[in-house]
Amino acid sequence: MQTLYVELGDRRYPIFIGSDLNPQTLLEPYIQGKQVMIVSNSTVAPLYLEHYQTAIEALGKQVATCILPDGEKYKDIQHLNLIFDALLEAGFNRDCTVLALGGGVIGDMAGFASACFQRGVYFIQVPTTLLSQVDSSVGGKTGINHPLGKNMIGAFQQPQVVLADMSQLKTLPDRELSAGLAEVIKYALLGDIEFLDWLEQHMDALVARDPVLLAEAVYRSCAHKARIVANDEKEQGERALLNLGHTFGHAIESYLGYGEWLHGEAVATGMVMAADLSHRMGWISADDVERTKRIISRAQLPIVCPKIPLDDFLGFMAHDKKVLNGQLRLVLMQRLGQAIITREFDPELMKQSILAHQAA
Amino acid sequence: MQTLYVELGDRRYPIFIGSDLNPQTLLEPYIQGKQVMIVSNSTVAPLYLEHYQTAIEALGKQVATCILPDGEKYKDIQHLNLIFDALLEAGFNRDCTVLALGGGVIGDMAGFASACFQRGVYFIQVPTTLLSQVDSSVGGKTGINHPLGKNMIGAFQQPQVVLADMSQLKTLPDRELSAGLAEVIKYALLGDIEFLDWLEQHMDALVARDPVLLAEAVYRSCAHKARIVANDEKEQGERALLNLGHTFGHAIESYLGYGEWLHGEAVATGMVMAADLSHRMGWISADDVERTKRIISRAQLPIVCPKIPLDDFLGFMAHDKKVLNGQLRLVLMQRLGQAIITREFDPELMKQSILAHQAA
Repeated sequence: MQTLYVELGDRRYPIFIGSDLNPQTLLEPYIQGKQVMIVSNSTVAPLYLEHYQTAIEALGKQVATCILPDGEKYKDIQHLNLIFDALLEAGFNRDCTVLALGGGVIGDMAGFASACFQRGVYFIQVPTTLLSQVDSSVGGKTGINHPLGKNMIGAFQQPQVVLADMSQLKTLPDRELSAGLAEVIKYALLGDIEFLDWLEQHMDALVARDPVLLAEAVYRSCAHKARIVANDEKEQGERALLNLGHTFGHAIESYLGYGEWLHGEAVATGMVMAADLSHRMGWISADDVERTKRIISRAQLPIVCPKIPLDDFLGFMAHDKKVLNGQLRLVLMQRLGQAIITREFDPELMKQSILAHQAA
Repeated sequence: MQTLYVELGDRRYPIFIGSDLNPQTLLEPYIQGKQVMIVSNSTVAPLYLEHYQTAIEALGKQVATCILPDGEKYKDIQHLNLIFDALLEAGFNRDCTVLALGGGVIGDMAGFASACFQRGVYFIQVPTTLLSQVDSSVGGKTGINHPLGKNMIGAFQQPQVVLADMSQLKTLPDRELSAGLAEVIKYALLGDIEFLDWLEQHMDALVARDPVLLAEAVYRSCAHKARIVANDEKEQGERALLNLGHTFGHAIESYLGYGEWLHGEAVATGMVMAADLSHRMGWISADDVERTKRIISRAQLPIVCPKIPLDDFLGFMAHDKKVLNGQLRLVLMQRLGQAIITREFDPELMKQSILAHQAA
C-alpha cells in the first residue's frame, strides 16, 4: 500500500492506494462522530456495500445507506435531495460522516451533500472507478449538473481520507477503465513528459489491469494533481491546467446528453482537439499530435467525436466555467507535456481543430 | 451613516447602516465582475427593485433579476433551483455577483445560491427587514429548509458588503418589525445587560420606527454579533449562544408549519421558555423572567405559543442542529444578560417550561 498526503494545511488528508485494503483499520482514525451515511449506486452497492457497511459497523458506528440510480444523468438536484432526505430520515446531525462509495458521480453528489447538510459535515471517499481514483479523489470539487451546464452547482469540500482500492477495478467495465486512463494520460500531457514515456511503455499492461502498475499510475496521477491543488485550491490559476481537453469535452458531453459518452471519453477527444489546435498555433509539432493520438488510441479511447453542428459545439463551449468576462480561455499545450491556459488563440483555427475531429 | 466592519481576515466586509443610503456610491467598490443577479421577492421587488437596478446599471453592469414568491414556505430546494435557472439562462459566469434584496429568506436563499453557483461567486446583501438587518447580515449563514427541519441544507458564505437602510423599514408590516425586535432583544439577553437597559428606555420609540434609534439598535446588534462571529465563524463554541430561544422557537415554527409564525415571534416565545427554564434551574430570578417577558411584550411579541402536544414539541427539538451525539444542548441564561450553552439541564423542568408557555 502506498500513502499520499494532499497538503492543504489543517485540511491535509491521506489517500491510501493499494489492493485488498482493510477499511476497518484504515477508516477508524478518520470517522468523526457516531453516524455514517454510505452513499452508493445501484451498480456498486450489490458488489461492495456490505463489505464497507460491516467494517464500519464493527467500529461501533450507526450506518445508514442511500442508494442512487447509476449514471451521470441522475447527477441533478432532485437526486441530491434524496441524500438530504436519507440523512434527515435517519436523524443524522452535524457531526455525522457521509461516505461516497462509487465513481465520480457518487463522489460529486455525496461530497456536495456533505458540504451542504447542516452547512457542512464530514466526508470520506471510496472511489471505485479508475477515473474517480485519479480525478475526483483529489481537489475537493463536488457538485451536480444543471440542464444548462455540467457541474454548474457545487462546493469545494475536502474529504477526511480517500481509499483507492485496485481490487475494485476488476469489476469495472472496459469502457470505464479506458475513461480513467484518459485522465491519467492528461497528467502526462499537461505537465510530465517522463510520465508519458512511462505510459507508452506500460499502456498494454494497464489496459490488461495489472494491479501493481495501476496503483503506480493512480499514485503518480494523484501526486501530480495534489501538487497543483495544494498550490491553487480554488482554481485561481495553475489548477485550471487540469482542464486540458475539458472545454472541448464538455461541449461533446453536453451536446450528446450527459451519460451518452463517458466523461473520460469526451476528455480524450477533447485533448486531441487541444493538441491539434496547439499544433495549428505553431506550438507543438505534427509528431507530437500523432504521439498524443497514439497513446489515447492505445488506451481504447476515441480520437474523434460524432458529428456536432459547429454552432452548437461553440455554444456549449461558451457556457464553460473558464469563460471570464465573456472571453473563452483554453488549456493548450505550449510543448508536449507542458500546458498553459490562454485566451490568445485563433478562433478560426479552433473551429478547424473541432471539425477535423468529428466523424464524417 | 455608520459603518461597521465584520472582521474575518481576508473576508472582512463592511455593513453600512443609515437612512436613504446611496447604493451606486456605496456598492461600486464591492461589485466584482460585470454581471449582477438581483434576487428579490414579489413583495419587495415592486417597492425597491428599480431603485437598485438603476443604480447598478449606472455602474455599467449587466443586471438580471430573479423574483421569488414571498414567504418562508418557499425557502426550499425547488425555489433555490429557480435562482440557478435564472443565473444560467442569463449566461452568468463565475465572476458574477448575486445581490439579495429582501428579508432573511431572500438573503438565505440568494446567499446559498451564490455559495453553490459555479462552486462560489460573489454575494452582496441588502436586507430590507429589521430581522435580516440585525441577524442574517452578519455571520454568513445561508441555506434552505427541508420538510424535516429548518435550515438543514446550506453553506457559510460571507458577503462583500451589506447595506442596511432604515428608510426601507417604513414599508415593513408591524408584525415583521416586532419580529426583528425579538432578535435585537436577544443580543441584550445573551450578553449585554446595558443594552437591555437601553432597550427598556427606548422600546416605545423603536416600535414607532424612529429611524435614528433603529439605526443605533441595528448597529449595536450587528456589532455584538460581529464580535461573536469573528471569534467563532463556524459555530464551534461561543457562536451557539446566538441561538438563545431558537431551539424552542424552531420546534414552534416546525410544528405550526413554516410561515405560520414569523421566525422572530417563535424566537421571542422561545426566549421566554429559555428564561423560565433558567429560573427553574435556579440560575436567574423570577424577577429576571418577568423583566424578559415585559420587554418582549412591549415589542408586541408573543410570550406564549399555541397548544402543541409535548411529544411533537420534543420531537422537533431533537431535530435541532445543536444535538451533538444524540444529546440536546440548550442556550440558557446563567445570569440575565449572560447566556451559556449547556447539556446540564433537567429535562423534566424543560417540559414544565414548555407547558407553562402554551395557550390553554
